[in-house]
Amino acid sequence: MSLSSPIAYEDAASRIFGAALVDGRAWEKLAFLCDRIGPRLSGSPQLERAVRWSAERMRLDGADKVWTEPVMVPHWIRGFERARIESPIDWRMELLALGGSVATPAGGVYGAVVEVVDLDELSALGDSVRGKIVLFNRAIVSGFDGENGYGSASGLRVDGPSAAARQGAIATLIRSLGTANFRLAHTGALRYADDAPRIPAAAISAEDAELIHRLIASGSIVRVRLELGCQTLPDAESANVLAELTGRERPDEIVLIAAHLDSWDVGQGAHDDGAGCAMVMETMALLARLETRPRRTIRAVLFTNEENGARGGRDYAARHGDDRHVVALETDSGAGPPIGFGVSAGPGGVEWVRQIADRLAVIGADQVAPRGGGADIGPLEEFGVPLMSLMQDPTHYFDWHHTHADTLDKVDRAALDRNVAALAVMTFALAERESTVPRPEPARIDR
Amino acid sequence: MSLSSPIAYEDAASRIFGAALVDGRAWEKLAFLCDRIGPRLSGSPQLERAVRWSAERMRLDGADKVWTEPVMVPHWIRGFERARIESPIDWRMELLALGGSVATPAGGVYGAVVEVVDLDELSALGDSVRGKIVLFNRAIVSGFDGENGYGSASGLRVDGPSAAARQGAIATLIRSLGTANFRLAHTGALRYADDAPRIPAAAISAEDAELIHRLIASGSIVRVRLELGCQTLPDAESANVLAELTGRERPDEIVLIAAHLDSWDVGQGAHDDGAGCAMVMETMALLARLETRPRRTIRAVLFTNEENGARGGRDYAARHGDDRHVVALETDSGAGPPIGFGVSAGPGGVEWVRQIADRLAVIGADQVAPRGGGADIGPLEEFGVPLMSLMQDPTHYFDWHHTHADTLDKVDRAALDRNVAALAVMTFALAERESTVPRPEPARIDR
Repeated sequence: MSLSSPIAYEDAASRIFGAALVDGRAWEKLAFLCDRIGPRLSGSPQLERAVRWSAERMRLDGADKVWTEPVMVPHWIRGFERARIESPIDWRMELLALGGSVATPAGGVYGAVVEVVDLDELSALGDSVRGKIVLFNRAIVSGFDGENGYGSASGLRVDGPSAAARQGAIATLIRSLGTANFRLAHTGALRYADDAPRIPAAAISAEDAELIHRLIASGSIVRVRLELGCQTLPDAESANVLAELTGRERPDEIVLIAAHLDSWDVGQGAHDDGAGCAMVMETMALLARLETRPRRTIRAVLFTNEENGARGGRDYAARHGDDRHVVALETDSGAGPPIGFGVSAGPGGVEWVRQIADRLAVIGADQVAPRGGGADIGPLEEFGVPLMSLMQDPTHYFDWHHTHADTLDKVDRAALDRNVAALAVMTFALAERESTVPRPEPARIDR
Repeated sequence: MSLSSPIAYEDAASRIFGAALVDGRAWEKLAFLCDRIGPRLSGSPQLERAVRWSAERMRLDGADKVWTEPVMVPHWIRGFERARIESPIDWRMELLALGGSVATPAGGVYGAVVEVVDLDELSALGDSVRGKIVLFNRAIVSGFDGENGYGSASGLRVDGPSAAARQGAIATLIRSLGTANFRLAHTGALRYADDAPRIPAAAISAEDAELIHRLIASGSIVRVRLELGCQTLPDAESANVLAELTGRERPDEIVLIAAHLDSWDVGQGAHDDGAGCAMVMETMALLARLETRPRRTIRAVLFTNEENGARGGRDYAARHGDDRHVVALETDSGAGPPIGFGVSAGPGGVEWVRQIADRLAVIGADQVAPRGGGADIGPLEEFGVPLMSLMQDPTHYFDWHHTHADTLDKVDRAALDRNVAALAVMTFALAERESTVPRPEPARIDR
């Protein structure tokens, strides 16, 4: 059998699908990453262990080439953290500093809380927030998008601290961006603007935000003390992990599949995005077992530093933007049952993907949304690369996302295997079929 | 209008029902207890504040007599607590010491973990647990009873520490008795036996128990360090709070309605049992507004120290066991929608209650179970008192019970008002109707 022998497409696709469902080893990979390595914040030894382990694992699983590419990443550490309502009652809040937050001065910051639901309301308050602690108190519902989904409030977390600081606030709190209330704080990144003082910022549990709301609504001035001991150390060396199955006929055409290896420093990073890494690694293992390589090169990238810097994605685009990517597909929305694919491509892109996804209806993965991508592969957009995502049922994702509760026990093994089946079949189709997803036109008609 | 004038039963019952649903103030009472007083562990100043507040509130709401009866209660405080897996990985666990636990020595206790699912499995291990930490790892499902309900595992928490200590264990951990996994530890009482060394004991989150299970299942010896700084101080003075509406015709016949004022020291004690206190207090307020008093005396008791000693209930029975209680009814299963009543009484008791409950079908509170009571009123059983409970939908109760997440935001105001309606109508019926619930026969045919 020669590497250049033709491949029976339908037969191979069926075998990949069956192997993923019957013989999938994604859960074992994820279990190792979660239980034996643990959370993997940029700068941590755990992340570097994950880099070495995943590279070695992909080598053992039969990739033709495996290598790492060094990336300097932010090195923020959490340290001590405490928040209390000190007046009109004494109440210890559950909190997590936002990633990148500055520390508080010794003794913390102390002030009255001003509650707002969005940046407009904050802006309207003008200087009246000076010397105060701003609480962004906006509840979200399940899902990434939509009027009250995660995306409707994540801007408060990212840009709220600087917006409040410009108006003189001394700190910000945000009601955790979560969809299950169990005294869980949800961390996440903030972005300090250059034109604003850097003030400390933390997420508090939904219950604590509700309590502050009730106390204020019943006429009290609520005073809070916030103490954060976080630190930003000099940038640390990390790496993107790359592995390839070299294309049989067109080795210079690259089908990129991706997830991110880093996580927040709480929980196990099981859903965000250990599961995606396991899906990508297992897809590579399954496709490596085909008797011939698919037509195009399949390149897996496990990105570093998605969570608090996106340096991995930017480094990759800088190094590889001019590689001949025919498509880039990221999976970074958890381990829920697969529901289909998102695709940002040229005219006919959705239809191209639908042809493949239709065959995945038996596992429920046949939706095709006219928008795809991911934080790490986003920088490839300017190179004209069609961007895709594997979509999971988002119902519970934001129950656990960025919390101490993002742990392996919540990953359903069968759903994980179905994700691998969907990803492996789609990856094979993208790499093997004569045609592939149309590239976006400059006007991006299909987005 | 004279206190001895007859009362139009049906009309009054309808007005009580309507007032509870339309004009209920239970939520305001519960909000004060939760938000302005907070958690109320025996020995805490918060509990004593709750004693004073609830007595004053019932006075203002029109009770004929309000008084407190001093009770000496255990005074256990939590202090510092930490548990880590130190081998084969480093992992901080979420824990809560069990109420009454002894502290660990300085530096904690450190040992290999032995996992068991019940006391039989522990017993079979004999001396092999010597020097080790026993983990009771048994998952429960919603509900108080049933094969895998709360009651199926609470004995592990109560009696497990001494059972393990008799076999030489140095500490016990228990998988939290909870039905939602969000890295929440659920505390609760233990009971040290006189014939066993007192070893420290804590509850860990379900996720941490699952992690230990997976590590052991994959061949590792899991070593844990447990550090507890809890202390048992000298008994503190607390009190049961009693209030009465004096019976119009038979003032010496007492219809007792009860809940418990104390809570654990985490969360706000909203469901356990702030909600029950609010229901009882609001029932008293509603019945105080009738133009005449019901036939019999209604006595509300807000018990102290249900959670970690049951001293309030025992003190009451010692003082008042010989009072002429026609019935005692406790509400201590949360703030879920009311589903009906439990009753332990003589023959015909269930039917008697069903006559009243049938009228509550419109709010879903028409189930009648042939078993009722509560921890605080349980000691009245030996005095031949029919025991009843108001039952709430238990679906979510053990999601939050004994955790930091037992907070007011989870209490549905309408469901709380429906509970008050059910309790107030039943209390009125028990106090006003010529007949009342049959007393148990010695053989307790109806239990």
